Amino acid sequence: MADFATKNYGIVAPVTPDERFMRMALRQAAKAAAAGEVPVGCVVVKDGRAVGRGLNRREGRQDPLGHAEIYALRQAARRTGSWRLEGCTLYVTLEPCAMCAGAIVLSRVERVVFAVPDPKAGFCGSLGNLVQDRRLNHRAALEQGVLAEEARGMMKGFFRELRRSRRR
Amino acid sequence: MADFATKNYGIVAPVTPDERFMRMALRQAAKAAAAGEVPVGCVVVKDGRAVGRGLNRREGRQDPLGHAEIYALRQAARRTGSWRLEGCTLYVTLEPCAMCAGAIVLSRVERVVFAVPDPKAGFCGSLGNLVQDRRLNHRAALEQGVLAEEARGMMKGFFRELRRSRRR
Repeated sequence: MADFATKNYGIVAPVTPDERFMRMALRQAAKAAAAGEVPVGCVVVKDGRAVGRGLNRREGRQDPLGHAEIYALRQAARRTGSWRLEGCTLYVTLEPCAMCAGAIVLSRVERVVFAVPDPKAGFCGSLGNLVQDRRLNHRAALEQGVLAEEARGMMKGFFRELRRSRRR
Repeated sequence: MADFATKNYGIVAPVTPDERFMRMALRQAAKAAAAGEVPVGCVVVKDGRAVGRGLNRREGRQDPLGHAEIYALRQAARRTGSWRLEGCTLYVTLEPCAMCAGAIVLSRVERVVFAVPDPKAGFCGSLGNLVQDRRLNHRAALEQGVLAEEARGMMKGFFRELRRSRRR
């Protein structure tokens, strides 16, 4: 029975809070994909409640700073009434870049959870780790791999579609 | 005479374009100080014209991402109609932090000129150099020290005032 439960044969596993909020971030990513943007989504959570959401809008808004994390952090600051996002967890489908990692440190986010690493531009472990740089005045806990298959699948599907549409 | 000219005894030296635009950035910084914000100002220039201006508004707007560079880059993207700020120079009174350095790379700014280094949080030479990281897909030329005395003086004056007002 123990084996049955741990191997999880066809049983829907209870969803952890991290999975629940990463699922929300994936929904934001899906919205980005539907709008023709690279599918990245983000949710900022405080006391078990999503206080900020964002999706990548770089092309649509012609905003160089239009990453999902930036919108989510801004909304969270607005909704909580303070730029100090202490006690907040940020969920994002792709490892944050240098700008977003820097923004996370400035916002004093407590914990960052991302789905897939970004070996080309990620600064939460891949090219560097800005959110845990001991020289800066704030550091965040870091976790990766939550719903990684789903996030990776969405990304791959998006770029496959993009290449197909460009060949036409 | 040569000595007289080079030592510049009381003579107003011709202003270089870099000094002219850094002076504009300093005016933005002065506005920030007047509003009780840490005095940092920024100007983005394209073809000899200021297309984006910004000043630090972190407290006033309770925006964790409210750095001068962020507002200036956003305005420049809006005014030029594209998030690709190729051919642009960014002038800022204080060395950009990790978030702003990351934003500069994402915006493809060609050149960054700052007045004073920030040994605590600067990522354009002090704690690291994100705008010239060869692993990223864009790099910017970098210059520092333009009107450094003025920028440093403004910063020092602001913090002296702040300490004084807190003692009251």
